[in-house]
Amino acid sequence: MTQLEIARVGKVSSEMEQAAAAENVSSEKVRELIASGRAVLPKNKRHQFAHILAIGEGLRTKVNANIGTSGPCSGIEREIAKLDAAVAAGTDSVMDLSTGPDFQEVRQMVLERSPVMVGAVPIYMVAIRLRLEGQSLSKMSADGLLRSIETQCAEGIDYITVHCGVTREVVRRLDHCERLMPSVSRGGSILMQWMEKNNKENPLYEDFNSLLDIAHTYDVTLSLGDGFRPGTVVDATDGPQVEELIVLGELARRARARGVQVIIEGPGHVPLNQVVANVIMEKQLCDGAPFYLLGPLTTDLAPGYDHITGAIGGAIAAAAGADFLCYVTPAEHLCHPNADDVRAGVIAARIAGHSADIAKSLPGAIERDRQMSIYRRDLNWDGMLSEAIDPDWARERVSLSSDGETCTMCGELCAVKLSRRSAKHPTSGYSGSRDQQEGKT
Amino acid sequence: MTQLEIARVGKVSSEMEQAAAAENVSSEKVRELIASGRAVLPKNKRHQFAHILAIGEGLRTKVNANIGTSGPCSGIEREIAKLDAAVAAGTDSVMDLSTGPDFQEVRQMVLERSPVMVGAVPIYMVAIRLRLEGQSLSKMSADGLLRSIETQCAEGIDYITVHCGVTREVVRRLDHCERLMPSVSRGGSILMQWMEKNNKENPLYEDFNSLLDIAHTYDVTLSLGDGFRPGTVVDATDGPQVEELIVLGELARRARARGVQVIIEGPGHVPLNQVVANVIMEKQLCDGAPFYLLGPLTTDLAPGYDHITGAIGGAIAAAAGADFLCYVTPAEHLCHPNADDVRAGVIAARIAGHSADIAKSLPGAIERDRQMSIYRRDLNWDGMLSEAIDPDWARERVSLSSDGETCTMCGELCAVKLSRRSAKHPTSGYSGSRDQQEGKT
Repeated sequence: MTQLEIARVGKVSSEMEQAAAAENVSSEKVRELIASGRAVLPKNKRHQFAHILAIGEGLRTKVNANIGTSGPCSGIEREIAKLDAAVAAGTDSVMDLSTGPDFQEVRQMVLERSPVMVGAVPIYMVAIRLRLEGQSLSKMSADGLLRSIETQCAEGIDYITVHCGVTREVVRRLDHCERLMPSVSRGGSILMQWMEKNNKENPLYEDFNSLLDIAHTYDVTLSLGDGFRPGTVVDATDGPQVEELIVLGELARRARARGVQVIIEGPGHVPLNQVVANVIMEKQLCDGAPFYLLGPLTTDLAPGYDHITGAIGGAIAAAAGADFLCYVTPAEHLCHPNADDVRAGVIAARIAGHSADIAKSLPGAIERDRQMSIYRRDLNWDGMLSEAIDPDWARERVSLSSDGETCTMCGELCAVKLSRRSAKHPTSGYSGSRDQQEGKT
Repeated sequence: MTQLEIARVGKVSSEMEQAAAAENVSSEKVRELIASGRAVLPKNKRHQFAHILAIGEGLRTKVNANIGTSGPCSGIEREIAKLDAAVAAGTDSVMDLSTGPDFQEVRQMVLERSPVMVGAVPIYMVAIRLRLEGQSLSKMSADGLLRSIETQCAEGIDYITVHCGVTREVVRRLDHCERLMPSVSRGGSILMQWMEKNNKENPLYEDFNSLLDIAHTYDVTLSLGDGFRPGTVVDATDGPQVEELIVLGELARRARARGVQVIIEGPGHVPLNQVVANVIMEKQLCDGAPFYLLGPLTTDLAPGYDHITGAIGGAIAAAAGADFLCYVTPAEHLCHPNADDVRAGVIAARIAGHSADIAKSLPGAIERDRQMSIYRRDLNWDGMLSEAIDPDWARERVSLSSDGETCTMCGELCAVKLSRRSAKHPTSGYSGSRDQQEGKT
C-alpha cells in the first residue's frame, strides 16, 4: 500500500509518525491530510533516508534544492559539495537534475548520501542518452520513456517531475496568445518538440495510467510539472499556463483515485500582484493538492540576485498557501550553480518559508522569532548567533564593540541598550540584575 | 517658498521638472502630488546635487542607503567607498547616520560628493557631542537640540529624521503592553531616556512649531521618525506603534499647513500578513503622506541575510503603496556594514521596489522586464547583461557553454533554445533568420 492508501484506511504509518514528530502536528492530523490529498509524504518504498517529512496544508513550508551536473559542468565532487551545502543549509529535499554524461553516477551518489527526500526529472535521462548517441530528441520512444521512468523509480527516487500536462490542446493555445517564451521548462520543451516532430500526443498524458502503475508500485509521489510556466513576468497567468493547470488538476484526481500521491508544480516568473491568484487557482483547480513553486520571481531584471527575487515571490505564495518552495540560486539565468550558490538559495527560500509560516500562524513558527528577540533584548550574542537561520555565517559576520555587549553598527548608541537603561516598565521583562550592571551613562 | 508652497500656487518649479523628467510622469502631475502632500521633493535650498527626485504616490518606488561611521568603526575612506558603492548600485538617496567622532567631516564629504539627496538624523550629532564631552545624554538641552538641527539644515541636508512622535503619552502606552523591546530606534531611545530622566515632554513635539520654522527656511523635508517601530515581529502593530503613528499624522497636517514637506517613517519588523495593514494605516492616518519604510523584516531569524528579509517586506509594502524603501544590509544586527554590504542592500531594495512597481502597473515598469525577456528569448547575452539590475555582477557571474549561445546551467538542453527550434508560432515573434541559423538537432 502507498502512504495515501494507508492513510485512507485510517492507519498511521511509521513514516507519518516521523513526519509528525518533525513539526508541531499530530500523526493523526498528518494522516488526515495525506488521506485527503492535501499533503503528501514523498518516500519511495526502496529508499531509506533520515529526515522523513510531509508536505502540505498546515505544515511547515518545505524547501527543495536543485542540484546536478549539466553538459558543460560535470563532475561528481562538485555535486557532493553542493548536496552537502544544501543539507547543511537546512534544505528539506534535493532534486538531482543532472544532465551531464555522469548522470547515473551522480544519481546513485545523491540517493545514497542524501539524508532528505530525493526528486528527479526522469525525462532528462532519456534526453541525455539520445544526445550521447548523437540522436535527435524526437527519436525518443514513448515506451522507452516509460521504461526509463520505471528504472529510475526502482532505484529509489522519492518523487518525480512528469510534464503530463503538456498536451496538444495546451500547445495549440500558444497560437492564441502573445507569449514571449513558449516554454522555459526543459522537460516541457523536450516533449513539445517531440510532439510536434512526431505529430503525436504527449505519452505521459496519453499513457498516464501506466505512469500511475509505476508510481503506485514504488509509492513514488508524482510532481506534475508545468511545461508552460511563464518564463517572464510578461507571460504570467496566460491561457497556456492556466489550461495546463486545469489538466494537471484532472490528472491529480486520477492519481489520487489510483492511490498515488501527487503534488502540482507552479511558476516561475509572476508579477507580485498575481502571486496570490496563482496559489488560489492551484488550490481550487487541484482540490487542495500541495503546490510546489519554482520561485516565483517577481521581476526578470535581477540575474545574479534571483534568490532574492524568488524569496519575495516565494514568501507571498507560501503565505497564501503554497506548500513547497523550490529554491532559486544567485546563478539562475547566468551559469551552473556552485556550492555557495546552493547555500544562498536554500537560506533565501527558508527565509521566505519561515516568513510565510509566521504569517499563517503556523504553531511554533513565531516562537523562534520570540526567542531570538529575547536574546537580542538581552544582548545575548551566543543566543542570537545560535538561533540564526545560518549560525555559521552569522558568527563569521558578527563584530562586537569593545564593551563586549553591543555590535559595531551602533556601539554605545545601541538603542536596545539605551532603552533598556531607561526602562521603568516591569512588564517589559528586564532582569533587575542586568539593569544594575549598567554603569555607563 | 518651499516646493510645497510653489506647488500650491500652481507653479511648476525647475526641480519638479527635473523630478518628472526622471520618470514617466508629467511635471504637472508631480506638482499636483506635491501640492496635495502625497509626494515630496526633498531638496534643501542650499544643497546642489545631480539627481533631483520626487517621492510618493504613483511615482517609482525610491531607495535609500544608510551610510556613516559608528563609534567603533570610523574613518572617512570607508564612508567614501560606501557612498560610491551605494550610488553605483543605483540608490536614490543616502542618509548619513554617522555617530563616530569624525561625524562632521563625514557629513561634509557626503553633502559635497553625493549626486543624490542626503538625509540625516540631527539628534545623533547632539548625542555624540555629549558623549565626547563625557556627559550623560540626559544633559541635552531642548534649545541646544533645536539649534543643532538648524545648524545641520543650514549645511544643506535635504531631509531629516525627527522623532517628534515619541511623546509622554505614547511612552506610557508601553506600560500597557507586553513589548519585548521598548525601542530599537536610536533617536527614539535617546529621547525616551531624556524625557524620563528630566520628567519633561519631547522638545521636538512640544516645540514642533520651531522645528517647522527651521524646516521651512531651508525647505528641508521632515521625515517623522518612528521611535516605537517594532524591533521584532512579535511586537508589531501594537499600541505604542499605532499611537505614535496617529501623532505623526497630526504633526504631518501641521507641517503641511506651514508649507513644510513631510514623510512618515515606518517599521521595522512586521510579520508578512501585517505589512499591508501597516501601509493602509499610514496612508489613512497621515492623509496619504509618503511612507518611508525600514525593511520591513518579515522574520527576526536571518541576521546575515536581512537584506533578503527586508526585500520580502519591502516589496509587499511598496506594492501596497509604500513609497520609499530604506535598505537593510546583510550586516544588520551583526556589525557595521562595509561597501559590499551597501551594494547588496541597495540592490535588494531596488529588486523589491521594482517588483512593486510592476505590481502597481507603474507606467514603464514592466517594459524593462519585457526588454530583458526579449534578450533572453533571443539568447542575446550582451543585451541581458546590460539590462540586469547589477550589470557588473551579472557579467562577473555569467558563464557560457561552448556553443556561445547557452549558459552552463542547462547547456544543450536549454529550454529557450529547444522551444525556439520547435516553435511554429509566428505570434511568438522569432525572427526567421535566427531560426534558420539553428542547424543542430
